[in-house]
Amino acid sequence: MANKKVVLAYSGGLDTSVAIQWLSDNGYDVVAVGLDVGEGKDLEFVKEKALQVGAIQSYTVDAKKEFAEEFVLPAMQAHTLYEQKYPLVSALSRPLISKKLVEIAEQTNADAVAHGCTGKGNDQVRFEVSIQALNPNLEVLAPVREWGWSRDEEIEYARKHEIPIPIDLDNPYSVDQNLWGRSNECGILEDPWATPPEGAYELTNPIEKTPDEPDTIEIEFQKGKPVALDGKAYELDDLILELNALAGKHGIGRIDHVENRMVGIKSREVYECPGAMTLIKAHKELEDLTLPKEVAHFKPVVEKKLSEVIYEGLWFSQIRNALEAFLQETQENVTGLVRVKLFKGNAIVEGRKSELSLYNEKLATYTPEDEFNQNAAVGFIELWGLPTKVHSMVKKKGVNV
Amino acid sequence: MANKKVVLAYSGGLDTSVAIQWLSDNGYDVVAVGLDVGEGKDLEFVKEKALQVGAIQSYTVDAKKEFAEEFVLPAMQAHTLYEQKYPLVSALSRPLISKKLVEIAEQTNADAVAHGCTGKGNDQVRFEVSIQALNPNLEVLAPVREWGWSRDEEIEYARKHEIPIPIDLDNPYSVDQNLWGRSNECGILEDPWATPPEGAYELTNPIEKTPDEPDTIEIEFQKGKPVALDGKAYELDDLILELNALAGKHGIGRIDHVENRMVGIKSREVYECPGAMTLIKAHKELEDLTLPKEVAHFKPVVEKKLSEVIYEGLWFSQIRNALEAFLQETQENVTGLVRVKLFKGNAIVEGRKSELSLYNEKLATYTPEDEFNQNAAVGFIELWGLPTKVHSMVKKKGVNV
Amino acid sequence: MANKKVVLAYSGGLDTSVAIQWLSDNGYDVVAVGLDVGEGKDLEFVKEKALQVGAIQSYTVDAKKEFAEEFVLPAMQAHTLYEQKYPLVSALSRPLISKKLVEIAEQTNADAVAHGCTGKGNDQVRFEVSIQALNPNLEVLAPVREWGWSRDEEIEYARKHEIPIPIDLDNPYSVDQNLWGRSNECGILEDPWATPPEGAYELTNPIEKTPDEPDTIEIEFQKGKPVALDGKAYELDDLILELNALAGKHGIGRIDHVENRMVGIKSREVYECPGAMTLIKAHKELEDLTLPKEVAHFKPVVEKKLSEVIYEGLWFSQIRNALEAFLQETQENVTGLVRVKLFKGNAIVEGRKSELSLYNEKLATYTPEDEFNQNAAVGFIELWGLPTKVHSMVKKKGVNV
Amino acid sequence: MANKKVVLAYSGGLDTSVAIQWLSDNGYDVVAVGLDVGEGKDLEFVKEKALQVGAIQSYTVDAKKEFAEEFVLPAMQAHTLYEQKYPLVSALSRPLISKKLVEIAEQTNADAVAHGCTGKGNDQVRFEVSIQALNPNLEVLAPVREWGWSRDEEIEYARKHEIPIPIDLDNPYSVDQNLWGRSNECGILEDPWATPPEGAYELTNPIEKTPDEPDTIEIEFQKGKPVALDGKAYELDDLILELNALAGKHGIGRIDHVENRMVGIKSREVYECPGAMTLIKAHKELEDLTLPKEVAHFKPVVEKKLSEVIYEGLWFSQIRNALEAFLQETQENVTGLVRVKLFKGNAIVEGRKSELSLYNEKLATYTPEDEFNQNAAVGFIELWGLPTKVHSMVKKKGVNV
Repeated sequence: MANKKVVLAYSGGLDTSVAIQWLSDNGYDVVAVGLDVGEGKDLEFVKEKALQVGAIQSYTVDAKKEFAEEFVLPAMQAHTLYEQKYPLVSALSRPLISKKLVEIAEQTNADAVAHGCTGKGNDQVRFEVSIQALNPNLEVLAPVREWGWSRDEEIEYARKHEIPIPIDLDNPYSVDQNLWGRSNECGILEDPWATPPEGAYELTNPIEKTPDEPDTIEIEFQKGKPVALDGKAYELDDLILELNALAGKHGIGRIDHVENRMVGIKSREVYECPGAMTLIKAHKELEDLTLPKEVAHFKPVVEKKLSEVIYEGLWFSQIRNALEAFLQETQENVTGLVRVKLFKGNAIVEGRKSELSLYNEKLATYTPEDEFNQNAAVGFIELWGLPTKVHSMVKKKGVNV
Repeated sequence: MANKKVVLAYSGGLDTSVAIQWLSDNGYDVVAVGLDVGEGKDLEFVKEKALQVGAIQSYTVDAKKEFAEEFVLPAMQAHTLYEQKYPLVSALSRPLISKKLVEIAEQTNADAVAHGCTGKGNDQVRFEVSIQALNPNLEVLAPVREWGWSRDEEIEYARKHEIPIPIDLDNPYSVDQNLWGRSNECGILEDPWATPPEGAYELTNPIEKTPDEPDTIEIEFQKGKPVALDGKAYELDDLILELNALAGKHGIGRIDHVENRMVGIKSREVYECPGAMTLIKAHKELEDLTLPKEVAHFKPVVEKKLSEVIYEGLWFSQIRNALEAFLQETQENVTGLVRVKLFKGNAIVEGRKSELSLYNEKLATYTPEDEFNQNAAVGFIELWGLPTKVHSMVKKKGVNV
Repeated sequence: MANKKVVLAYSGGLDTSVAIQWLSDNGYDVVAVGLDVGEGKDLEFVKEKALQVGAIQSYTVDAKKEFAEEFVLPAMQAHTLYEQKYPLVSALSRPLISKKLVEIAEQTNADAVAHGCTGKGNDQVRFEVSIQALNPNLEVLAPVREWGWSRDEEIEYARKHEIPIPIDLDNPYSVDQNLWGRSNECGILEDPWATPPEGAYELTNPIEKTPDEPDTIEIEFQKGKPVALDGKAYELDDLILELNALAGKHGIGRIDHVENRMVGIKSREVYECPGAMTLIKAHKELEDLTLPKEVAHFKPVVEKKLSEVIYEGLWFSQIRNALEAFLQETQENVTGLVRVKLFKGNAIVEGRKSELSLYNEKLATYTPEDEFNQNAAVGFIELWGLPTKVHSMVKKKGVNV
Repeated sequence: MANKKVVLAYSGGLDTSVAIQWLSDNGYDVVAVGLDVGEGKDLEFVKEKALQVGAIQSYTVDAKKEFAEEFVLPAMQAHTLYEQKYPLVSALSRPLISKKLVEIAEQTNADAVAHGCTGKGNDQVRFEVSIQALNPNLEVLAPVREWGWSRDEEIEYARKHEIPIPIDLDNPYSVDQNLWGRSNECGILEDPWATPPEGAYELTNPIEKTPDEPDTIEIEFQKGKPVALDGKAYELDDLILELNALAGKHGIGRIDHVENRMVGIKSREVYECPGAMTLIKAHKELEDLTLPKEVAHFKPVVEKKLSEVIYEGLWFSQIRNALEAFLQETQENVTGLVRVKLFKGNAIVEGRKSELSLYNEKLATYTPEDEFNQNAAVGFIELWGLPTKVHSMVKKKGVNV
């Protein structure tokens, strides 16, 4: 019987290299796919290595621009922070990677798609639900979850099959990175009382080593999208990478989070998101100036739901479409300039302005230019307080029932 | 006809001193009440000055402990930040001051209660609704709103009645302060593009002048209440004041906010809340460790509502009681220790631990101690993804209707 | 000085007839506008009467189709029921009427717009906020609120100016009606313990007088819009009127509501909405079949907010646009047929079907055709229950802190 | 090796009778527990039958009062309707049954607890999560899910072991019943287009066979709890049973629901809840009279969450405790009388009154007794509409960006 064909998300690391061999052992022809979503990967090297360890075909995809425009941008506009802390770094890339895998599976007439996740994280859920959403006829394989080996067993298997063992094998960290940030778990981090060691960080300076002079930057937004930095136009992916460097230098965007995973456990993760945290903060400040109060007060409800939907792997779903449709309407007037001082771990918004600002100095001022009608307040308070007054009178009646 | 009697919230400043005279002119005997809610006021001085400018009686109240225990504590436990930014500094003290005014009005058989707010802020609403909630039979007067004078007219009136004019009359700031922080508006701040001048701040160092060595502190919580600092027990009001000094020294807690007031305008305010922001952050981290996921995900809905309820002057209301009842249940297990590094404007939680921690290292670990059943994930994902799969199959049918 | 020009929403009744005279007395040339939003008004009669009582111009507008398509349809799709009861009958027509008034004011170069509401209802708010949203430069007049007359004073004024007094002057009811239903307040209804008298109703039979045979109808929806009744295509306004007759005959859609008005009071209203209640119910049942669970569980949050936004007069606002954008995405698959039995005050959905149904008999069945994998449930429950188990183990430790 | 001991929820039906045998075959001593939660079961018969088919011990528990007071009452006060339709009949009894099983398991030193659910419903989840919450050390067995037999295989096994086969074996319905209602699934109901057959109903008359005269009843509530019917005091369980009979006679409370189960599928269920639907409706009307607006508008958020929490098996959890704490505060003033007309499938609230009513006729009236200050509305609308006006002016500037 002919082999089945499987499309594997291939990182070049040990797990997915072993997976190529293991899938072959189990009767699959493996098509490897290496993606760059902003982690600065050497795609050529990944492509070659896949073939070297046994893939029958090897694809690479530079998905940075699509990732920035289609996945990161709405997340930034919605200030999506899972449990008010985590900017959804990996949760955003998983659906994009799934989409690319499914596209290549359909082009190559593959029977299955495979990912390298274990059985206790969130990413397995995100991959499998995304893939089913895009093509419910594709089988999904999770070799690492299936083989269930210890680290030692995996290395022995790799040695036996002459799969290259990485030099930094004793690196205690398990890292995922893309445009929107970098996540890190494992080892010493598993004790939530322990301070994360400096070795856990790569994109950000410790505050102790940040410059003693701030950088003050101006970010321009058009309809909620960052389009320029200090007056210079940027593509979104480039702007984020530039901000990662700049804000990272000043130690901005370290996040240390004990979070509730989908699979029922709490885990402790360390994230670095210098560009993400700077952009989310600046964007929120511009919204403070340009969103009507009713929108400003309801949008967080939508933001919270969208954060959970993305975290829980439901990117390709009607609920996300509907939440994003709400979101897009709110961005209509989010146009203007935000001035941010980057200094010693802080992204401080010092000023914001917009031609569409709803802040009206004539109404807000306490100077003689004041146009606000203070008498209106009397009637306002009378009706605003009326239910309280009636309630209070009822209580005072001292009725005992 | 005998004069009516009014109980006035008296600060010792120009507006309320003029108000004593103005109320007397309008047929009221004025009972002045000076309160300390943590701003470090000289109550003796305030008491004397009230009598000197015409009050028939002068009371002072040190309300710091009651303010800390009854008003600040639930706000901290609920992480109440209006529009995700403002820790409700003044919004928390207004109901307490109203309560004291009503108590004294009832003791002195007064006919009315008066406050010194203008007609365009939120505080007038908070005072008037609170007073009506507590005693709907008391008249409420707002002399400053009623007289509607310009600054010059007010000063002329003061001069004519020999009311002392403050030396810092050209101070451009309008400040309110209590245990939970300090708010500031006016002048240059009215342009939201302008950087707030250093003169606007008093509780916090600019980052440029903060120490080059961090302070690392341990905050102990019992059932959601901070009870000790670095192992030393504190009353809550003292603990907050201590943290204000400590975190303020490190430049923590500056907030620059363009906010939506109740009365229909956006205004720009600058707040300093070093203790508040440090405690809210530390408390949230301990909750991350000790709250079940369902609670952690719904509590923010309650927090947001409580923030709005307090901001909008509805402290004395059934809705606040009900929201707080929810809140109290959630604090049952929020007991433990949080280690915070204070440095260069940052309050960084480096570790948290609790005997009631729901973080389970045996489940979270990737070491051989792992007790998590990875096979369970397969069934979990199958059912979690089933609706997506069905939805996807329906779409694939390509039905056109 | 030349008169100013005002565009008045004119109903043909006593209040607005008197308003024409009163506005003329106060220096305004009055342009009257009579609208039909489905109440079955004789527009020609209204037009003539306006001129007869002193308007300088008289317009009429048949706005039924626009009302149905632009205002009623999204409200039905969102199942908007204020406080879970009131289908927003008048709240929906006010923004449409405001829009027409503003259009005519702009065409006729008028300075002002006027409505006939008193000072204690919701409609004054809806008119004034809608008009300001559409053209903030137009003055808004509320003659009935301004003159503040008693009923007797108003009649005397009318007699003096030879304004026709209606024959049913002692009619105790204050009614508003359109396509989406009929509202009624006043008189005996003001005691919430009293049963509404039969005279309060007009669109619906009392159950005692409904037919003893049911009508069973099939309503077809396409993308959330009702398009046919028993296989016959209808324009939306006609379909609603047809259903009003049919469901009204069976006594469906009486609503007796003690509601919280915007202006701080509770009032008791009686509504009749036979078509509205039938359509909302049928549409919800089709959604139960076609919406994914995540959408079905979040849409009510949007529905509730939209109900409040519309009730509170904020139709022309970014928040409504954004909520409707969410809503529209959800209607994509709400296509199918619903069978409703109309009988004795009940609209009973007996069946629903759709080519886009997410109900999958193969998964739901308990017959041997079952394709559901019951083993998956074991893993699902293990992870679903894991946080509870951990929490329970922590509690069992009996830690006392 | 000695047998392990298992406590089994025993209904007296075929499945759990076979389970006693099957568990014995698998090395367990079975302790059977028969419960009455209001379904009117013959507990003596159940007790005897358990022993007869092989249990080593047989307990019975009349849990009606506990069920009514501790489980049904808060659900009624929260108007919990899953997906706005299902009053959580079985979802409410599962945690109570689990609690009784665990109590008996602890008394008898059992090793395990067992339930009779299959692998595709919600009840398996509710049982297993509840049991783990109460005692995480108990093993949970689900024999019906484990053996995975077809109906024929099960009957053959029963015959072989001389387990009595019920006479109504070809009864196509799968029913669960308690105080709060009756649920039914299976057979013809699996086609959501099909009208449920009359045989599916037992507690309610079809409207065609209801009396031609209404019953009008008065329900008295104290602090949100129904305490009397037509002036006669009742225990809660008796009151509900009485109402089931009365409202059921008038055909009230049939619910036909296509619902989203926890396990990822949509299913169609038919419920009968005559007492539940009558009480929920009456209670809501009394709340309309006695709850402040802010509470009335936020309580539905809590109600929706509580519905989902209960549906999803999380009764024994901190989130339910916290939601109920909110709920209890809101019931403080829900005291009064509601008059309900039961007629032809309708429970019509015709009147409601309360000494704690917040409805104030003096404020609501349009008669000369009116005490409402209509002038206050002008100031109210000015500030309420101010953001809209500013927004509109900004739009009119015609800025193009």
